[in-house]
Amino acid sequence: MGPARPRRHHAPRAFTAFGLDPTRVGDAARRPEDLVGYLEAHIEQGPYLEAADASLGYVTTIAGARRFRITFTGEARHAGGTPYERRRDALVGASAAVVAIETLAKADGTIATVGRIEARPGAVNVIAGRVDISLDLRAATDLERDDTWRSIRTELAAICDARQLRLDVVENHTAPAAPCAPWLQQAVIDGIVATGDPAPMGLWSRAGHDAMAIAAVTDIGMLFLRCHDGISHHPDENVREIDVARGLDAFEQAVLAVARTVESGTTTATAAR
Amino acid sequence: MGPARPRRHHAPRAFTAFGLDPTRVGDAARRPEDLVGYLEAHIEQGPYLEAADASLGYVTTIAGARRFRITFTGEARHAGGTPYERRRDALVGASAAVVAIETLAKADGTIATVGRIEARPGAVNVIAGRVDISLDLRAATDLERDDTWRSIRTELAAICDARQLRLDVVENHTAPAAPCAPWLQQAVIDGIVATGDPAPMGLWSRAGHDAMAIAAVTDIGMLFLRCHDGISHHPDENVREIDVARGLDAFEQAVLAVARTVESGTTTATAAR
Repeated sequence: MGPARPRRHHAPRAFTAFGLDPTRVGDAARRPEDLVGYLEAHIEQGPYLEAADASLGYVTTIAGARRFRITFTGEARHAGGTPYERRRDALVGASAAVVAIETLAKADGTIATVGRIEARPGAVNVIAGRVDISLDLRAATDLERDDTWRSIRTELAAICDARQLRLDVVENHTAPAAPCAPWLQQAVIDGIVATGDPAPMGLWSRAGHDAMAIAAVTDIGMLFLRCHDGISHHPDENVREIDVARGLDAFEQAVLAVARTVESGTTTATAAR
Repeated sequence: MGPARPRRHHAPRAFTAFGLDPTRVGDAARRPEDLVGYLEAHIEQGPYLEAADASLGYVTTIAGARRFRITFTGEARHAGGTPYERRRDALVGASAAVVAIETLAKADGTIATVGRIEARPGAVNVIAGRVDISLDLRAATDLERDDTWRSIRTELAAICDARQLRLDVVENHTAPAAPCAPWLQQAVIDGIVATGDPAPMGLWSRAGHDAMAIAAVTDIGMLFLRCHDGISHHPDENVREIDVARGLDAFEQAVLAVARTVESGTTTATAAR
């Protein structure tokens, strides 16, 4: 297609800047029946491969996150003049919640993170009348994740009852866990074995990946590369050259394994679901 | 003085806008030896007069606040990929601190408020690497206040040790408690009695007041007026007309009582200290 004509202000600018025509985005769609599967490689974003002294690993499933915005509403009052029995301090309530969330998720073996917090009015000498926090909740299975959420929800309600706070919860993101197809897990295992690791390590991905979206139209499989100290989403994120080299080799072998499986007709692919 | 001439950009604009000359601000100074005392009236900003069904009260002392900026430093990491044993979550540490601060101050009968909190980077899917909170600490006496601060400081250090967080504390405001002079407390009592309340209630002020600054140069006394539900620093702050009327009467009587005391030469004023 030719360069895009100038469009009205609501045209996606990244599209037009790249010389694409947003009205023809549908032309890029893939039909499920044309696909055999999807493979993705990514750094682990966790510490398990490094701890096991392994360059590469295969993914068993990608955790589905649920995310919430949780609001605690109390009453903004003068910090000096308001005795404790008159306080409805939204920040103490939210803080008790943050601590409880960690305790409950740890006990369940799931992962819950509060990364954002905002207290209003946010003045040194005024009791916080409203606090918003984010919650990001993950587990190997949706069942475990949802069990932890129920425990958290119950505990937050108890905290707010005891402190006379109003609790509001908005779920603003949900992704179901995306299991990797057994035959694509096997292809990735074969690829890793071909690089010299006789017993590749399997992991569930705590982080979300593009494969989660693709899982709606075809089978998925993932290769993980060891990274430094499990650090990610941080300037210190790092992967070693040797692991990238092994990753490229393993990925190539995995693609060849997929091709062999498809050609032999032994795939159990559910691509046309 | 005449209208101020236009000045360079660092001239105090409120001064010049009001037709004053900032270079002559010293002309407005009062000399301690010219003063006999200072009386101030204010709404209580607390619920005690209302609870006692009293219009007016006299202040025994004004609490001196200490304020701190407290920083918890951990490590920002991916919310999904980082297992609990690798986390140094500054927000969970800060939250545990906020809860502990309330518990300790309550036990001591002092007042501690965390009104501000900021978590960085502040992203839904990143563990907080740094959290700053404010702390406002008040008590009837500086001794009690400082005792509570020592307990809090010790507890914060323990929380940070357990969670491998760095703790930084900056004290950014300190005001000593300002006791009201006994003879001015008596003048305010006399004023309230004159309005028909035979046994006025004495209170310590949890909030700070202009009198705290004036206390550096002369004796201070304060009259408190009942306010609605103790609410202050909030749009719902409210005082009844009847209480304002009684407050004006009592204040006038208090000023007359001061005048009588000064004229009779029986004042124990330490105005010329």
